[in-house]
Amino acid sequence: MDLTQQAAELDAADRLGAFRDLFEVNDDRIYLDGNSLGLMPRSVPGLLEDVTSQWTREAVLGWDTWLDRGLALGDHLAPVVGARAGEVAVCDQTSVNLYKLAAAALDATDRRDIVTDAGNFPSDRYVLEALARSRGGELVVAPEDAEVDELATFLDTDTALVALTHVAYRSGKMHDGAAVTSAAHASGALMLWDLAHSAGAVPVDLTGWGADLAVGCTYKYLNGGPGSPGFVYVRSDHHATLAQPIAGWFGHRDMFAFDAGYDADPSIRRFMVGTPAIVSMAGTQAGIEITARAGMEAIAGKATELTGLFIDGLAPLLGAGGLDLITPRDPARRGSHVAVRHDDGYRLSQALRAASVVVDFRAPDIVRFGFAPLYTTFGEVAAAIGIMEDLITSGSFRTGSATRRGVT
Amino acid sequence: MDLTQQAAELDAADRLGAFRDLFEVNDDRIYLDGNSLGLMPRSVPGLLEDVTSQWTREAVLGWDTWLDRGLALGDHLAPVVGARAGEVAVCDQTSVNLYKLAAAALDATDRRDIVTDAGNFPSDRYVLEALARSRGGELVVAPEDAEVDELATFLDTDTALVALTHVAYRSGKMHDGAAVTSAAHASGALMLWDLAHSAGAVPVDLTGWGADLAVGCTYKYLNGGPGSPGFVYVRSDHHATLAQPIAGWFGHRDMFAFDAGYDADPSIRRFMVGTPAIVSMAGTQAGIEITARAGMEAIAGKATELTGLFIDGLAPLLGAGGLDLITPRDPARRGSHVAVRHDDGYRLSQALRAASVVVDFRAPDIVRFGFAPLYTTFGEVAAAIGIMEDLITSGSFRTGSATRRGVT
Repeated sequence: MDLTQQAAELDAADRLGAFRDLFEVNDDRIYLDGNSLGLMPRSVPGLLEDVTSQWTREAVLGWDTWLDRGLALGDHLAPVVGARAGEVAVCDQTSVNLYKLAAAALDATDRRDIVTDAGNFPSDRYVLEALARSRGGELVVAPEDAEVDELATFLDTDTALVALTHVAYRSGKMHDGAAVTSAAHASGALMLWDLAHSAGAVPVDLTGWGADLAVGCTYKYLNGGPGSPGFVYVRSDHHATLAQPIAGWFGHRDMFAFDAGYDADPSIRRFMVGTPAIVSMAGTQAGIEITARAGMEAIAGKATELTGLFIDGLAPLLGAGGLDLITPRDPARRGSHVAVRHDDGYRLSQALRAASVVVDFRAPDIVRFGFAPLYTTFGEVAAAIGIMEDLITSGSFRTGSATRRGVT
Repeated sequence: MDLTQQAAELDAADRLGAFRDLFEVNDDRIYLDGNSLGLMPRSVPGLLEDVTSQWTREAVLGWDTWLDRGLALGDHLAPVVGARAGEVAVCDQTSVNLYKLAAAALDATDRRDIVTDAGNFPSDRYVLEALARSRGGELVVAPEDAEVDELATFLDTDTALVALTHVAYRSGKMHDGAAVTSAAHASGALMLWDLAHSAGAVPVDLTGWGADLAVGCTYKYLNGGPGSPGFVYVRSDHHATLAQPIAGWFGHRDMFAFDAGYDADPSIRRFMVGTPAIVSMAGTQAGIEITARAGMEAIAGKATELTGLFIDGLAPLLGAGGLDLITPRDPARRGSHVAVRHDDGYRLSQALRAASVVVDFRAPDIVRFGFAPLYTTFGEVAAAIGIMEDLITSGSFRTGSATRRGVT
C-alpha cells in the first residue's frame, strides 16, 4: 500500500478528524510547525469578544470573574498533564515560571547544583545556569538525549534539582518521565519537567511519575496563541514547604487585606505573582478546552500514528537521499515532531516553505516537522513526504538563498 | 459660580474633550476607577482582529513582526515617562519587572538594603522585602507619604536602592521625583520608581530626574486592558553594567543562535525574559497610541484641573460632613486620584457604586476617586460631588450592608 493510500485510510478512521474544523486551517499550505505556534482555534475571536465586552460593560468589576482565571484554567489543564486539581496554575511566561520553581527548589536545600542535558532549550539552560551560579552552585549538563543510566552518573549529593525538557525541542526524543524522576529522587534531588513540547501532544503523567515540579507553555500544542501564558505545576505536598522568590500579591494568603508583610498562600497560589494577562488567556482557554474535549489518549495515540507514518515515508530518503533521522523510532520515546539532519538543511527547509510546507530549521542542519494531532491530517503527512521527495530527487533546492532569516 | 456651571465651562474649553469618544464609555455610570482599570479604547477590537487574522494567515511567521513589539511599544511609551528611545521595554507583569530591576540593583553592589515607604503598594513591598532578605539585607520602610528630608534620614551606606511608587496608590500623594532621586544618589543608592499610578496621568521626567530604573503597568491610566503587560525603564548608561537574574532567551545578544551560554544583550533587551504576550499587547498598543497622541502636557494639565475641581467641590463635605481629605491640595504634589477618609467609608463607597458612581475602597476607611484625563469629564466630577453630597446629607448609606466584597 503506498503512503497516500495508507494516509487516506488513517484519515478515514481518525477519531479526531472532526477537530480540524475547530481551527483556522489554511488549506493552501501544510502547516507542520504547530510545535512552535499552534493554529488558532475558531473559538478565539468569540472569547476575545467576551473579554472586550466584559471590559466595556463591567470595567473594574470584571475582576470578580477574572481574578481566579489562572487557577480555573490550571484545573482544566491538570488532567492533560496528569496532575490533580489545585496543582496547576496558568500564569506568567515559561521562563519566569521556570525561574520561580527552580529557585524554590534550590532555596529548600543546602545542595546547590542543577542537572540538565544539552538537549534542553537554550533559554531553560540560561535561566538554570544563572540561577545555580547565583546560589554558588553550577549547572551540570549531561549530553543531549542521554538515557537515564547515563543521566544518573551526573547526579550526586550536590544535586538539588534535575530540570529537563520532557520532549527535546531539537531531536524530538522523549525522556522516560517515570524513570528519570525516580533517578532524581534516588539521588535526593527534586525533579522539574518542562512540558513545552509535551502538553497537549504526548502522554504526561506527573502524578504517576512522582514529579515534583513542572512548567510549560500554552502556545505550542495547546494552541493558545502568540505569547499566551505559561503554567506551573507543583505537587501538592510541596505547597507547604517550597517558596518561590517573587513574592507578588497574587501569591499572598489574603491579597486584598493589603497587609504590610507577605504571607504565602498555602496552595498553588503561592507560585503566582501578579495581575494575570486576561486578554491573552482567552486563547489559552480556547486551546485547553479543545484539548480537554479531545482527551489526551486520543491525541497521544494520533501523535504516534502521525509521526509513525512520516517516519515510514522517510525511508527512501534516508541514507543515499541525504537525510538522517534523529528522532527515535520507538513510539514510546518520541514526541510529536520528527527531526532530520541534512547537510543543506537550511536550504531544504526554505524550499519546503516555498512549496507551502511550513517546517522549521534549527542550526546547524536540522529540519523539524511538527504534527499537531488536533488538526494535522495523515494526508498532509503523505503530501509533505511527496514534496520533500521531489525536492531532494531534483536537488533544485540547493540553488536557493543560504541567507538565514532571523525568525523561524 | 456653582460647581455644575464651572464644570460646563471647563468641559467646553477642554482640549482633550474629543478623546472621550475614543473609549467605550458607558454614560449610565460615572467611572472614577480608571486608576484601577482604564476603560477600553475603541480601537482595541480592531487591533485584536489584526492579531487573530495575522495568527490565522501567517501562523508562526507572524513572529517576524511580533518579535520586537515589546521594544517598539517601549519606544512609543518612552516620551510619556520622559525616557529616551531604547530605554523602555514593554514586557512581563509589573511585579516580575520590579523583581528583575531591584535584583539587578542589589547584585551590582555590596550594599544590601532597600528603602521604601509605607505608602508603596503592598505587592511592591512584598517583592522588595523578600528580595532584600534573600541577599542578607532588609527592607527599610519610611512612613507613608514621607517628604524627602524625612526619607533621607532612612538612607545610609547600606542602602543599595530606593524604590518608591511615584504617586501613592492610597493617598494620591505624589513624590518629588527629582528631589527624591537626588537624595538617593547623594546616599550612593540607585533610584527605582514604580509609575503604575503615574504613567499616562501626571508629568514624569525620568531623564530629568536622573532616575536609574522604573517599572509600571499599562492597564491603569494607559488603558491597556485587564492584565496588559508592564514595562521596564533602565537608563542607558546602566545597560552595560546591570544584569537581571532571569536569564531568558529574549535577553540574549543573539537569541536565535541558540548558544549554550547566556550572553546578555548590551541594550534594554537584557531586561526582557521570554515570549511576549502578543494578544494582550494589542490593548497596550491602543492605550499607548492614544496617550502619545494626546500628549502628556495636555493630559497632566487636565488631571490637575479634574482633581482641583473635585477638591473644590468637596469643601462643604469636609469636617462636619464627615469627610477628611488625604490627598495634598498642592497640584504639584498630587496624582490623578483623590482620596478621602470617612468613618463609614466602605458603606459610602458601596452607596456611591449603587448610585452608579464607580469608586473604590481601601481599608480601613479610604474612598478613592480616580480621574482619567482622556475620558473623565468635568461634568462627571460635578455630578459625583452632587451624588455624594446627597448621600452624606441624607445619611441613608449608613444602613447599607457592611459586608466587604472580595474584589473591588
